[in-house]
Amino acid sequence: MVRILLSRAAAASIEPQLVALPVTPVYLGEDPPDDLEVAWASTDVLWDHDLREEMFAAVVAAPAVRWMHTNSSGVEGAAFTELLRRGATVTSSHVHAPIIAEYVLRTVLDWFQRPEEWQAARRERQWLKHDFREVLGTTWLIVGMGAIGSEVAVRARAFGTRVIGVRRTPQGDEPVDQLISPSEVLDLLPAADVVVLAIPGNAATAGMVDANFLRLMRKDSVLVNVGRGSLIDEDALRDALDRGALDAALLDVAATEPPPADSFLWTHPKVVLTPHTSGHGTGIHRRAVELFADNLARHVSGEPLLNVEHAGDVSR
Amino acid sequence: MVRILLSRAAAASIEPQLVALPVTPVYLGEDPPDDLEVAWASTDVLWDHDLREEMFAAVVAAPAVRWMHTNSSGVEGAAFTELLRRGATVTSSHVHAPIIAEYVLRTVLDWFQRPEEWQAARRERQWLKHDFREVLGTTWLIVGMGAIGSEVAVRARAFGTRVIGVRRTPQGDEPVDQLISPSEVLDLLPAADVVVLAIPGNAATAGMVDANFLRLMRKDSVLVNVGRGSLIDEDALRDALDRGALDAALLDVAATEPPPADSFLWTHPKVVLTPHTSGHGTGIHRRAVELFADNLARHVSGEPLLNVEHAGDVSR
Repeated sequence: MVRILLSRAAAASIEPQLVALPVTPVYLGEDPPDDLEVAWASTDVLWDHDLREEMFAAVVAAPAVRWMHTNSSGVEGAAFTELLRRGATVTSSHVHAPIIAEYVLRTVLDWFQRPEEWQAARRERQWLKHDFREVLGTTWLIVGMGAIGSEVAVRARAFGTRVIGVRRTPQGDEPVDQLISPSEVLDLLPAADVVVLAIPGNAATAGMVDANFLRLMRKDSVLVNVGRGSLIDEDALRDALDRGALDAALLDVAATEPPPADSFLWTHPKVVLTPHTSGHGTGIHRRAVELFADNLARHVSGEPLLNVEHAGDVSR
Repeated sequence: MVRILLSRAAAASIEPQLVALPVTPVYLGEDPPDDLEVAWASTDVLWDHDLREEMFAAVVAAPAVRWMHTNSSGVEGAAFTELLRRGATVTSSHVHAPIIAEYVLRTVLDWFQRPEEWQAARRERQWLKHDFREVLGTTWLIVGMGAIGSEVAVRARAFGTRVIGVRRTPQGDEPVDQLISPSEVLDLLPAADVVVLAIPGNAATAGMVDANFLRLMRKDSVLVNVGRGSLIDEDALRDALDRGALDAALLDVAATEPPPADSFLWTHPKVVLTPHTSGHGTGIHRRAVELFADNLARHVSGEPLLNVEHAGDVSR
């Protein structure tokens, strides 16, 4: 019997599989046995500070854990680093990625088309056309070609754009017109109409969008951040926006969430801010459960797991 | 020398070509010569009632016209019908099509994601997430697989949708998962999350979206109209929206434009109305001029023209 650490809510969501497979659930709040083999950080666990800390501590303390699955898009935290160090497997759930890509296309199209002007005119019963900026023919620089960046790239290219992807370790199957390494980003920035940040936050990426980065962006370019708030030096961003060094910052994340009451992010006319919600599609929970259930059956039968993370993908 | 009827503004926009090619401009306001061979209904002509009527009358009166190019997306009007009857060539400018497709994706993404709620919360410095409907996995029924419908299909499919296209005369290269004939539309309506109208307005299509059509749509489905207002029986639409028979009507066109002051289109919460502006990208004029200049060079050298319209595409 494979012993799995999970929450009672998560267990209920895969009850048919728990009954059908040779597995024994161990619930959070119970003492984990020495032969604990699997842990599932489901969404309810990730969103509850106490449950999350309990699971991560239990996993680090359990020597036999061979596989941990997390419903998050990326994997950030010491527990994952420790598991990978031991040679255990970590899998993640990229169910948010296509939805975050829908958000990215939507926020760029909204900035270009300005539908709020049509709606304001409609409230006054005014029939007021306006010309709007086209996505067709624009160049997108997508920093990070993991699951999110790739999903953005596929959609952006369907709009007749040129997509430049940035990836440390090319896999050869990136859906881009040009793939560059992180060291080339500053050289290509002046070519980009849209710059999308889709990388994890860690020591190497903190503050990568600094005054120098922003100076190299085009005046008519748009910066989209669906990665982490720590990627951007927000003081430098405010200065750049005030100077007109770029056209807009479309942000789903911030250095502090929510930002302090006096932050320019709440009020700046060249900022669109949403509350770290870009992945909140109504289908993500269902797909996350289906993915773990699929991986659990694979684990039990010894088949390769889906969405295996490698040490280089993990942020502390 | 090829004699071309056009406006002075249009002539100015292709001055290099007029100088380089063996062509002689004939300006609107002048008496057209008997050997008038080409006419260009440029955007400035189409948008000016008097210039437009003058050009259409001149073309009908000129026996030698072999080719007329219009900057409109579709071709509607007796002048085109008459030219095609005579065996002359009509070409149109599909430069709006990719931009209208950008509008369609934007308006559906906006309806699903409800960004105005995030922006209202931001104004109150509130960090309020919400789950939103996903485009991923939806089925789109695109009525009309001409230039506009095809551009919508390409973009929608990149979002992981299933696209059903409707076309009277299949060409074999439609970018769809399933192609059906107009007679099958009512059968497939219950499968569609998104129904896009992208056909011309004419006697055959007037009122096609009637009470019966709307009854077959799903309660959670969205109707998008970027064709003509005449396609929809607006009284039936209001009844259907009031009954919750569909989720929303996202309209860029109306039976009367602008609608009368007492029309429900101005105020209904399940309607989004924009002022026939979905094709107004900032690049359309440049691309329209480039297309005519290209076709003019082809005409002079006897090469095949681009965007040739057939009699079946023309609406009166």
